[in-house]
Amino acid sequence: MTIYGNAISGNCHKVKFVCDRLGIPYRWVEVDLSKGETRTSAFLAMNPAGQVPTVMFDDGRPLAQSNAIMQYLAEGSDLIPTDAFDRALMNQWLFWEQYSHETAIAVRRYYAHILKKPDGEIDPSLIEKGKRALGVMEGHLAARQYFVGEKLTLADLALVAYTRLSHEAGFDLAEFPAVKDWVRRIERDLGLNS
Amino acid sequence: MTIYGNAISGNCHKVKFVCDRLGIPYRWVEVDLSKGETRTSAFLAMNPAGQVPTVMFDDGRPLAQSNAIMQYLAEGSDLIPTDAFDRALMNQWLFWEQYSHETAIAVRRYYAHILKKPDGEIDPSLIEKGKRALGVMEGHLAARQYFVGEKLTLADLALVAYTRLSHEAGFDLAEFPAVKDWVRRIERDLGLNS
Repeated sequence: MTIYGNAISGNCHKVKFVCDRLGIPYRWVEVDLSKGETRTSAFLAMNPAGQVPTVMFDDGRPLAQSNAIMQYLAEGSDLIPTDAFDRALMNQWLFWEQYSHETAIAVRRYYAHILKKPDGEIDPSLIEKGKRALGVMEGHLAARQYFVGEKLTLADLALVAYTRLSHEAGFDLAEFPAVKDWVRRIERDLGLNS
Repeated sequence: MTIYGNAISGNCHKVKFVCDRLGIPYRWVEVDLSKGETRTSAFLAMNPAGQVPTVMFDDGRPLAQSNAIMQYLAEGSDLIPTDAFDRALMNQWLFWEQYSHETAIAVRRYYAHILKKPDGEIDPSLIEKGKRALGVMEGHLAARQYFVGEKLTLADLALVAYTRLSHEAGFDLAEFPAVKDWVRRIERDLGLNS
């Protein structure tokens, strides 16, 4: 299995987190977005949406969308709850992450940290939207150690990917102490350096 | 089961599509977003993200995120492929819908059709992004009747919700004939008036 990914993309880190946690072997091919490497005809034949991560399985079948890749790789593992409703809650957080979290925190990180744009040139609504997302997480984590069922699931892996990099996006987790504690907990569970 | 939804929201239609298709009984509570009804403390207690649709099951447990609700309600039905890889592809399209399709077509429809903003006041990148999304669908559907496994799945239900309303967002499906045919096919399958 080959992961076409980018080393600074949190969405790509998610796939790596699952593989490393479950001992799934993979080959990593670094894709340079700044050189248009997701817009080549070869890449678009694999993923017409032109996004990383894209995974190519050894039988020649590609799969895209970080959270869908995680769900597929983790099927049958303890990263996915066996209880149907807990699984539904995990999926709820996966969709929320892509719609309400990534679109603020990852997007602002892209402008601020990767493109090095000055604050004044970045859409100010991204800070507000990102703080709202972190606030939702803070409220949920106030009385919990993990997002779903008090066990590590894909919801934690998906949400930690960009939350642990949120300082690069201009957010201060000191304002969200339960989120900050949870990031350290998940990083420890995954054996990541913080 | 109670669906807290809004009659003009495609995300809410998705939940209705699944219930109607599978014969799942529900009570619909209309939520008026323009009156701030998703920001009341009662609503936020149910869904801290303050979004519709939110479903409340009879045992008092809420579930949010349209695509996660669909996955939960349709579990074990023929709307979800039994083959693990086809299921992964279905999930891939569900995440793509929320990230790359809804965020252009539903968002532009909101400004143009619901808020009645003139074209000049709407972010012009939404047209470009929406056309790119419809183009990805057109390429995929050129040689297919359905998104995954040549059977009706949640991928079709999720994607048709806003695609069938895309004229209200300022898009013309005449430019995307395979998408246009597919919309009619899914509407027929679901018994919807087009």
